Amino acid sequence: MKINKNYLNLKPSYLFKNIAERTEKYKKENPDADIIRMGIGDVTLPLCKSAVKEMIAASEEMSDINSFHGYPESFGEDFLLDAIKYHYSKHIGVEVDTSEIIVTCGAKEDTANILDIFDTDNTVLIPDPVYPVYLDTNIMAGREVKFISANAENGFLPMPTEKDKADIIYICSPNNPTGEVYSKEQLKIWVDFALANNSVILYDAAYEMFISDIELPRSIFQVEGARKCAIEFCSFSKTAGFTGVRCGYTVIPKELEADGMKLLDMWKRRQSTKFNGVSYVVQRAAAAVFTDEGYSEICENINYYRTNTENMMQTFDSLGIKYYGGKHSPYIWLKCPSDMKSWDFFDFLLKECNIVGTPGAGFGENGEGYFRLSGFGNIERTKEALKRIEDKLKK
Amino acid sequence: MKINKNYLNLKPSYLFKNIAERTEKYKKENPDADIIRMGIGDVTLPLCKSAVKEMIAASEEMSDINSFHGYPESFGEDFLLDAIKYHYSKHIGVEVDTSEIIVTCGAKEDTANILDIFDTDNTVLIPDPVYPVYLDTNIMAGREVKFISANAENGFLPMPTEKDKADIIYICSPNNPTGEVYSKEQLKIWVDFALANNSVILYDAAYEMFISDIELPRSIFQVEGARKCAIEFCSFSKTAGFTGVRCGYTVIPKELEADGMKLLDMWKRRQSTKFNGVSYVVQRAAAAVFTDEGYSEICENINYYRTNTENMMQTFDSLGIKYYGGKHSPYIWLKCPSDMKSWDFFDFLLKECNIVGTPGAGFGENGEGYFRLSGFGNIERTKEALKRIEDKLKK
Repeated sequence: MKINKNYLNLKPSYLFKNIAERTEKYKKENPDADIIRMGIGDVTLPLCKSAVKEMIAASEEMSDINSFHGYPESFGEDFLLDAIKYHYSKHIGVEVDTSEIIVTCGAKEDTANILDIFDTDNTVLIPDPVYPVYLDTNIMAGREVKFISANAENGFLPMPTEKDKADIIYICSPNNPTGEVYSKEQLKIWVDFALANNSVILYDAAYEMFISDIELPRSIFQVEGARKCAIEFCSFSKTAGFTGVRCGYTVIPKELEADGMKLLDMWKRRQSTKFNGVSYVVQRAAAAVFTDEGYSEICENINYYRTNTENMMQTFDSLGIKYYGGKHSPYIWLKCPSDMKSWDFFDFLLKECNIVGTPGAGFGENGEGYFRLSGFGNIERTKEALKRIEDKLKK
Repeated sequence: MKINKNYLNLKPSYLFKNIAERTEKYKKENPDADIIRMGIGDVTLPLCKSAVKEMIAASEEMSDINSFHGYPESFGEDFLLDAIKYHYSKHIGVEVDTSEIIVTCGAKEDTANILDIFDTDNTVLIPDPVYPVYLDTNIMAGREVKFISANAENGFLPMPTEKDKADIIYICSPNNPTGEVYSKEQLKIWVDFALANNSVILYDAAYEMFISDIELPRSIFQVEGARKCAIEFCSFSKTAGFTGVRCGYTVIPKELEADGMKLLDMWKRRQSTKFNGVSYVVQRAAAAVFTDEGYSEICENINYYRTNTENMMQTFDSLGIKYYGGKHSPYIWLKCPSDMKSWDFFDFLLKECNIVGTPGAGFGENGEGYFRLSGFGNIERTKEALKRIEDKLKK
């Protein structure tokens, strides 16, 4: 047999491996170093009480023949679809039909798998810097990829021009890695651009819970016209600390069509053929997150992480270090001081402050000279890290 | 944008929808009918105690900041990889390295997703009748599919001849839907055929736990040469009643190469790009299944289902109805009596016996005139169903 030769065009993904190796080497040479990790995008707070309670109750149900659950519904159990619809309506102000929601194991899986329903002949527009999955999944399928430059000039929120025409457009807002958020007016320009060019927008809203300004859109469906051109990807990972639980959902409006086919129907056909639904216990935990009690618990966690980004912003403000994100995102995207390159600043932080972060260069060419720090850590440890940075960088 | 036009070549999947509609209609017209469902391949016994205990313990860990688990390992946690290796070694007599095992949400997902790493230009050989996922996923990718006929003449265990040459070969043993199992000698012929033609065998072993004869292979890796041509797909769904829990695993030997690439590396690249690992609580439950205690509990459940197939075989023997499977499989694949067509026998069973089964015609052309009954039901209800069949069909 022959392999999918597009895989040969993938660049080895060295970013986190390289980070781990440099950190490991430093630790070996400095066994007493008290290293603070602010690199990875993983959460650290435990699951909220409501979710755990439901997870345990569901596990117990599975041990009793009268309450056992076999194959899940392919697109999500009704109780979870109802909970997600309620979340959209109550917290975001967007009405979606439960038939437009498809529950899965996570937004990473969905942003990758959705490509199955599109022709490999489509062109793709991806911002640079970017979450690497968008690029790699399209390389695997052999699609032509164009980049749109996110940079200091456009505040890392690029807007489309004639040359950016493409069939498939990725938008991630709040953005990973830059932490920046599009306004409704900016998204409207993207939506109009997509409608004018018969493009589909793949809208990654995995960080929507971090938006604290009611004027900023948490869903692309808050923008007029989006139901005719956009697919939205959401996740419980950052919303409710489900990185190790695995649950997400995708919303495809009924109106969204191409070549006379409803994309919702195509995605459902894809999912019922290649997927068998999400674990019952996981779905129960996920539904608990969007009850009023669960929601107030996850908001507490989000506020905890927000304290970290607020402290970070305060420190970088006082140091005169330029940064993006942070306000509506767990990530701070900072300009490396003294025009250092990303990996040089990585080494500097590791050696001088014993802090591990993520070099921006790992997210694309435009990330060079930038650095991502995460607010997902412990408040006291993050404060300690900021103190170290302050001590080293204060003029 | 343009859609993936291969989707237009998919036939609507009417089988289970059609079954549900006919059953619903009958129930409306006969509200007092006591219907026994022997159609679907879902399990009915609850999870074993060991699995539930671990699932609850893991859920509790997730509620404590000191024992919380974030992103899982992409290919499975060490404790689960070790448990699967132990299962292979102790119960099947096959040695696999933990680095060759990749844990996922299920065998359906894996048999579908594995196709990503192969060229769309490969030809595919699929037995008829067959589990519909093999066919549909290849149609979605636009691959050329050939069928090999499984029929009464070859005991529903077709063997390859020159004309069956193909790049990708599907084998499911014990088979869904026919319940038949290849012997080691037969599998050896398939392996040699694959090696001679540079084919890869996609070996679906989802029903391996139902094999009770130690001489029959539970893994293709019990056959010499298989490590150079086969990928094996396994599942906790039927093994341990995990249809609603969702966990499976795929084994790709290190030796397996094509175009100079290790397929194991390609699959790992695919998974780390498009998948984020299996829920921690699910992995804990899965690992418990392969402890000595858990294994004895799941064997009890398998024996329970086996009682059903034994009772079914006894009844069909006494009625002189020809059938396949049952011995090493939860499925009985029977020749419809009086040369009835599959759907006619469906209607007969529904109306005369109030039993719902699965028409063989739904699994491919060669399934016409055959019928699948499942042993996953309750023992008393299955006995009751067999009594009704006996009453109606006794000469």
